[in-house]
Amino acid sequence: MTGPSEVTRALSGFICDARWEQLPDTVRHEGKRSILNFIATALAGCREDAIEHTLASLLMFSKGGQATVIGRTERLDVLSAAFLNAASGNVLDFDDTHLRTVIHPTAPVAPALLALAEMRPVSGRDLLHAFALGVEIECRLGNAISPEHYTRGWHITSTCGTLGAAAASGKLLSLDAERMIWAIGAAATQTGGLVECLGTPTKSLSVGNAARNGLWSALLAERGFSGPPAPIEGRQGYLSALAPSTIDWPALTNGLGDTWELANNAYKPYPGGIVVHPVIDAALALRQEPGFSLAAIERIVVRGHPLLAARADRPNVTTGREAQVSLQHSVAAALLFGKASLTEYTDACVRDAAVLALRAKVYVERDDTIDVAAAALYMLTKDGASRSVSVPAARGSLARPLADREIEDKLRSLATSWCAAHNIQPLIDAVWALDRADDASLPIRLTVPAQT
Amino acid sequence: MTGPSEVTRALSGFICDARWEQLPDTVRHEGKRSILNFIATALAGCREDAIEHTLASLLMFSKGGQATVIGRTERLDVLSAAFLNAASGNVLDFDDTHLRTVIHPTAPVAPALLALAEMRPVSGRDLLHAFALGVEIECRLGNAISPEHYTRGWHITSTCGTLGAAAASGKLLSLDAERMIWAIGAAATQTGGLVECLGTPTKSLSVGNAARNGLWSALLAERGFSGPPAPIEGRQGYLSALAPSTIDWPALTNGLGDTWELANNAYKPYPGGIVVHPVIDAALALRQEPGFSLAAIERIVVRGHPLLAARADRPNVTTGREAQVSLQHSVAAALLFGKASLTEYTDACVRDAAVLALRAKVYVERDDTIDVAAAALYMLTKDGASRSVSVPAARGSLARPLADREIEDKLRSLATSWCAAHNIQPLIDAVWALDRADDASLPIRLTVPAQT
Repeated sequence: MTGPSEVTRALSGFICDARWEQLPDTVRHEGKRSILNFIATALAGCREDAIEHTLASLLMFSKGGQATVIGRTERLDVLSAAFLNAASGNVLDFDDTHLRTVIHPTAPVAPALLALAEMRPVSGRDLLHAFALGVEIECRLGNAISPEHYTRGWHITSTCGTLGAAAASGKLLSLDAERMIWAIGAAATQTGGLVECLGTPTKSLSVGNAARNGLWSALLAERGFSGPPAPIEGRQGYLSALAPSTIDWPALTNGLGDTWELANNAYKPYPGGIVVHPVIDAALALRQEPGFSLAAIERIVVRGHPLLAARADRPNVTTGREAQVSLQHSVAAALLFGKASLTEYTDACVRDAAVLALRAKVYVERDDTIDVAAAALYMLTKDGASRSVSVPAARGSLARPLADREIEDKLRSLATSWCAAHNIQPLIDAVWALDRADDASLPIRLTVPAQT
Repeated sequence: MTGPSEVTRALSGFICDARWEQLPDTVRHEGKRSILNFIATALAGCREDAIEHTLASLLMFSKGGQATVIGRTERLDVLSAAFLNAASGNVLDFDDTHLRTVIHPTAPVAPALLALAEMRPVSGRDLLHAFALGVEIECRLGNAISPEHYTRGWHITSTCGTLGAAAASGKLLSLDAERMIWAIGAAATQTGGLVECLGTPTKSLSVGNAARNGLWSALLAERGFSGPPAPIEGRQGYLSALAPSTIDWPALTNGLGDTWELANNAYKPYPGGIVVHPVIDAALALRQEPGFSLAAIERIVVRGHPLLAARADRPNVTTGREAQVSLQHSVAAALLFGKASLTEYTDACVRDAAVLALRAKVYVERDDTIDVAAAALYMLTKDGASRSVSVPAARGSLARPLADREIEDKLRSLATSWCAAHNIQPLIDAVWALDRADDASLPIRLTVPAQT
């Protein structure tokens, strides 16, 4: 085990020495899946209020012109573009999940790299490699300090993401090990973000800052802007300030290069909270059963891990945002409309009379023998009959990952939801071809619909 | 006492309802002294490496043209100008000190307001009022969480300063109480900064961010960018994440409007660490004594509070930065040169042979009956005689504050050290006239030497 006194040096050395040839094919491919999924959710999020406000504000201060804002014709300086794209990718909570830490790994890291790729030509291979390394640092930090760090109030995607973005950007800039330590130090002193802000537009600030500040930290380090030698483990450094009472030190450095946290990334088929996903699967399956009739429903009982009830037992919700973590709403909408897309999580759908009536018939039962990625659903009909569906693992969970094609469909559906004319296939092709591309900036440029 | 559930609301209400007429004359005057001292230290710091690097980098991304960078001809957007000026004011650790918390109160707050004043015309009175209120929020937060917050690793000037800058900027923007809460929430989720970074250029990042992010938070809140209702005291909010095990809740809200933390602000006559100040006073007094001779010195003994030895017993230093917290260096340089200005804390002075020789004759003794703002100095001469000087309170301490004229002299000396032609009197006059000025932006514009 690397001793606590050498953590930053060990991580920096690993990043700097890492070679593309050492990155397993499966991890390379997972990187492309993560970026595809990120672009999908950023294209869904790029017109949300939080994005409109921050974009309008940043346009007043930004030099502009340097980098793409995903899905928009406005162009910003690279730091502000990294901010905006990270915020867009995460704003709907529809992006990826590192399940052990609940970090959304891609939102802080990929936008820093994609903005950098528009400033300095880099190959797709270098970008994918830097991305995998940045996610590694981000998630290992998270593994070492979870779950107390989050419980205490730290928005872990932001607080670990800043360092991940710095490490990834530093790799793409080919920083040496000393400068990599400086970049990590600059990032560590520029990170923050509070769980208290979730559910409000302010959530997007710390996620955006993670990408922006991580990228800026690497650019400053490249210039020779120096920092402390042990920013992560130093006596008054990152872990002392931000970590809880117990730190899992081995999680930071054990097996570096042998295991890849990116391999543990999961993608959501539905925009709801991840605990609700098996419930939605069950509802959609029930609806497909022969003889299923909405009119016959007397009562629906959802049985799941106690965490399901703790997080999502919300029979009365008033906004689309709250509905994302309501199992009652999710079941009702899935049974009524046969899907669980963003449309089913709008304020309008929450107020729909039929949804309201059905929501009132949904109940939850705790069962700690059921896995958190599983759920069972029982329907009692007015004539006294019953039906049941069991889902052992939700779609999108690690046991049942989304197929490449399903991520493509997610992107296609989210992109065309507000711009039917957007030709998505070239964008999808460009992401799958990233490891063979000389210019890594093609995908992000293709996120902007051609102006007509 | 205001209950923990109403802290943010109570503070926001206080800021929004506060009227200039209620601000005591002494506090108004202290605000002008603080701003004068801040401009002095920013003019000293504005050519340091950390500033050159961040300025050169931000110029690549900034729209430019909107606001003054203190002491420089480059102009930046208002957010970046707030960043740079905060960093310049604090980079040399020569700025002001709120002794109870060791917060440097002005660096995060004033630059946000001065940048805003160049974007939207405001009166000097409104700026001074907003400044006092911002410092109040900043230092009350600090009082509630000191000293554990800092010990843990949080750079308290940055972590409390962001909220102070947001509150001050929000007041200058005349936010209503709801928007003020949003501004505080946006600031709370955008704050950070590690003590580990002190002594390196990365220190300036969190101080700069405090001013920038505080200002941006208020500008976003003005647009209707909303946040959580209780960002400070909420279950996973600022205090849960950043505060230590014990929080002094009454310190946050008791006596709001009756006492003013700005009245407890102190200004440094010397650039060294504040514990070294009485020692420098004693050395300078000793040098003035009739018959004093450098050649006769056999040994110098400094007697002071144990904190003096703990912080500043550093006989061997190699850089000007370290020398700022070396009592041996400070005594030697003061005795040799009769002053303790920035010149005496350069790398060159640290390597000066005469300084080295004298430094080796300086020793320290702990005496816990001596106050931390006091010190005594004993000189033994080669002929066996002894002299001693006692300083009960250092120059610049609350018991012996710098006179207005001394702050003016500090500004004059620091500004002309790199630009002898800089006509400083109009700048000094403009600060003293702030409470009668229709346009609060005059002082900062006068910090740029006229181009010849």
